[in-house]
Amino acid sequence: IISKLPDVGTTIFTTMGQLAKAHNAIDLSQGFPNFEPDPELLALVAKAMRDGHNQYAPMGGLPVLREVIASKIKSLHQRTYDPEKEITITVGASQAIFTAITAFIGKGDEVIVFKPAYDCYEPAIAVNGGIPVGIQLNKADYKIDWNHFRSKITPKTKMIIINTPHNPSGTILAKEDMLELQKSLANTNIIVISDEVYEHIVFDGHEHESVSRFEDLAARSIICSSFGKTFHVTGWKVGYCVAPAALMHEFRKTHQFNVFCVDHPIQHALATYLQQPQHYLSLNGFYQGKRDYFLNALKGSQFTAIPAQGTYFQLLGFSNVSNEDDITFAKRLIVEHQLASIPISVFNMNGQDHKVLRFCFAKTHDTLERATEILQRI
Amino acid sequence: IISKLPDVGTTIFTTMGQLAKAHNAIDLSQGFPNFEPDPELLALVAKAMRDGHNQYAPMGGLPVLREVIASKIKSLHQRTYDPEKEITITVGASQAIFTAITAFIGKGDEVIVFKPAYDCYEPAIAVNGGIPVGIQLNKADYKIDWNHFRSKITPKTKMIIINTPHNPSGTILAKEDMLELQKSLANTNIIVISDEVYEHIVFDGHEHESVSRFEDLAARSIICSSFGKTFHVTGWKVGYCVAPAALMHEFRKTHQFNVFCVDHPIQHALATYLQQPQHYLSLNGFYQGKRDYFLNALKGSQFTAIPAQGTYFQLLGFSNVSNEDDITFAKRLIVEHQLASIPISVFNMNGQDHKVLRFCFAKTHDTLERATEILQRI
Ligand SMILES: CSCCC(=O)C(=O)O
Ligand SMILES: CSCCC(=O)C(=O)O
Repeated sequence: IISKLPDVGTTIFTTMGQLAKAHNAIDLSQGFPNFEPDPELLALVAKAMRDGHNQYAPMGGLPVLREVIASKIKSLHQRTYDPEKEITITVGASQAIFTAITAFIGKGDEVIVFKPAYDCYEPAIAVNGGIPVGIQLNKADYKIDWNHFRSKITPKTKMIIINTPHNPSGTILAKEDMLELQKSLANTNIIVISDEVYEHIVFDGHEHESVSRFEDLAARSIICSSFGKTFHVTGWKVGYCVAPAALMHEFRKTHQFNVFCVDHPIQHALATYLQQPQHYLSLNGFYQGKRDYFLNALKGSQFTAIPAQGTYFQLLGFSNVSNEDDITFAKRLIVEHQLASIPISVFNMNGQDHKVLRFCFAKTHDTLERATEILQRI
Repeated sequence: IISKLPDVGTTIFTTMGQLAKAHNAIDLSQGFPNFEPDPELLALVAKAMRDGHNQYAPMGGLPVLREVIASKIKSLHQRTYDPEKEITITVGASQAIFTAITAFIGKGDEVIVFKPAYDCYEPAIAVNGGIPVGIQLNKADYKIDWNHFRSKITPKTKMIIINTPHNPSGTILAKEDMLELQKSLANTNIIVISDEVYEHIVFDGHEHESVSRFEDLAARSIICSSFGKTFHVTGWKVGYCVAPAALMHEFRKTHQFNVFCVDHPIQHALATYLQQPQHYLSLNGFYQGKRDYFLNALKGSQFTAIPAQGTYFQLLGFSNVSNEDDITFAKRLIVEHQLASIPISVFNMNGQDHKVLRFCFAKTHDTLERATEILQRI
């Protein structure tokens, strides 16, 4: 067997998650809430099943769900998308991203990815014969050096993947960043994938600067988002994808032969649930409370933090504590201290190790209390 | 925008389904039941959600569900698969097939497909740079001419896709066919995708000859199946994929970055539900009743049929009724007679038109009665 992805191993999420289980560790590694979704949402799914919505959904997604998404984007970002031609429901944001890359990337196409990067972009590029071009974010603050970025654009650059709020760093792209990106791409045909799965988890009064707010960027962008992150149901695997009609037309050619459509009863439930803006608008405050608790409880510890501005991840530098590489240290944290995290060197350029671990704070108060007690002791 | 799939339009299922809706037609086009799944299965999903299985499932699928699938295969086909390394839960069989093709097919690789073929194989091959090589099934009985098949194997042949029971013809591959296939592939490295989504819908006492029954075939085969078809829940999008560890290892590299994992609560429900063999063993009789009713009710009509041996589809020849091409006739059937079907020329080699339409009989007695009354009148 000749592998199309010789370099791909098991994801770090599976590796650390399994080790956490084996050692009965507190698991702040893979990003998922350890609390339950709203019972009202569960009841809506049960109702949709009883109401007989158990056969194929339309290929692009349930029309009413797409309409509610269009309204949400309109009210948050003042951009109008046509629910019929410009919004598609997907099997989580992963499938949206994989499908978008597959629809547009072929042999030799270059795709710019900012590092550290969530681990699904590069294999999707590679399996399609494309070439991931990594750009390391500034080490100190995880910001993008836009001059450096512009120097990496070549005639072969077909696509750029951005991610805001950013996993794993918890930073967000500011309006000025988006304007820099927009300016840099003027007069090119470069497509942007904007991974905005943490769109509703932004702190300290900042606003989520969706690419949809910037007319010229929006015209070339495929926005991918997730209900799993927003409604505490990562295991339901429902997300969505928004793009101008011409891009969406190509996206759907691949989508319809990849998954054809998405869980039908859950789409009904989400369509109803999403009609109440407080169901997602309350999320910023909810997670800011958790971030604040987590950082406060770590005051005086040996770990150093730049406060996350978004996402449910907090990076902690551990160079005051250990000289080990981050993978070794993260494993030891599980085995000796029963606390699991994600070593982020696996997401960096050439596995660069900046002695930083990622902790997921989408956890109950009790879990965060026990986790921070452990970190205080080290 | 340069399209990777310039020839792909809207699927025939969406086209005919929308036309059926617009004309309030009885819809025997797209394959899905118009009756409800077992309430017990719905209750199991609601319970799994209440029990808190709402976050990511393991990447390969819920272990207990994979174990039950392994037991089922063992008892039906006497082949042992390792649930951990050789079975993966997928977003329906579509995603299994798309992922299997993506994992193994690259630029210039030839993939043999028997025509008429379900419409998802060829675009998945094309988007990966592969070359679909069509072989038309015998016009009279939809059987495979194995000598002709062997003449089509070249050094570039990387994969063969078979489908039994066969959509759209309703035929099944017999043991002798499987032995011919096995013999033809000896001393090659050709991979087989075996689309067995209708594995539990086989009539007249025939047995489903899964590739897993044939040792040398099984060793090179990726079997794709579907719970949607078996449990009347096509809209839940859960299926599975079975292959020897080395093939599955490559499959999962793509799977984990395509969808990562599959709906978690539904996997819990299916794991429990699948433990009762009568839940799938009863399906043959159930659908044979519908096929028998459908064909009996058509006796004396102008339509001609080879009885389906499996699947929930019945082909009907209409050359006694009309000289129109099948797409025109199928559309007229909707517009003038309020009855929707699928014209199968779209699945044939070069769109060859044999004046045949496909009707889905996964419908209530009442629906089949009204549909056959219409066909009797024509
Ligand atoms: C699909 S596994 C990863 C969940 C996640 O987004 C993360 O932990 O970064
Ligand atoms: C995914 S749409 C098709 C359903 C089906 O298998 C068919 O109608 O052939």
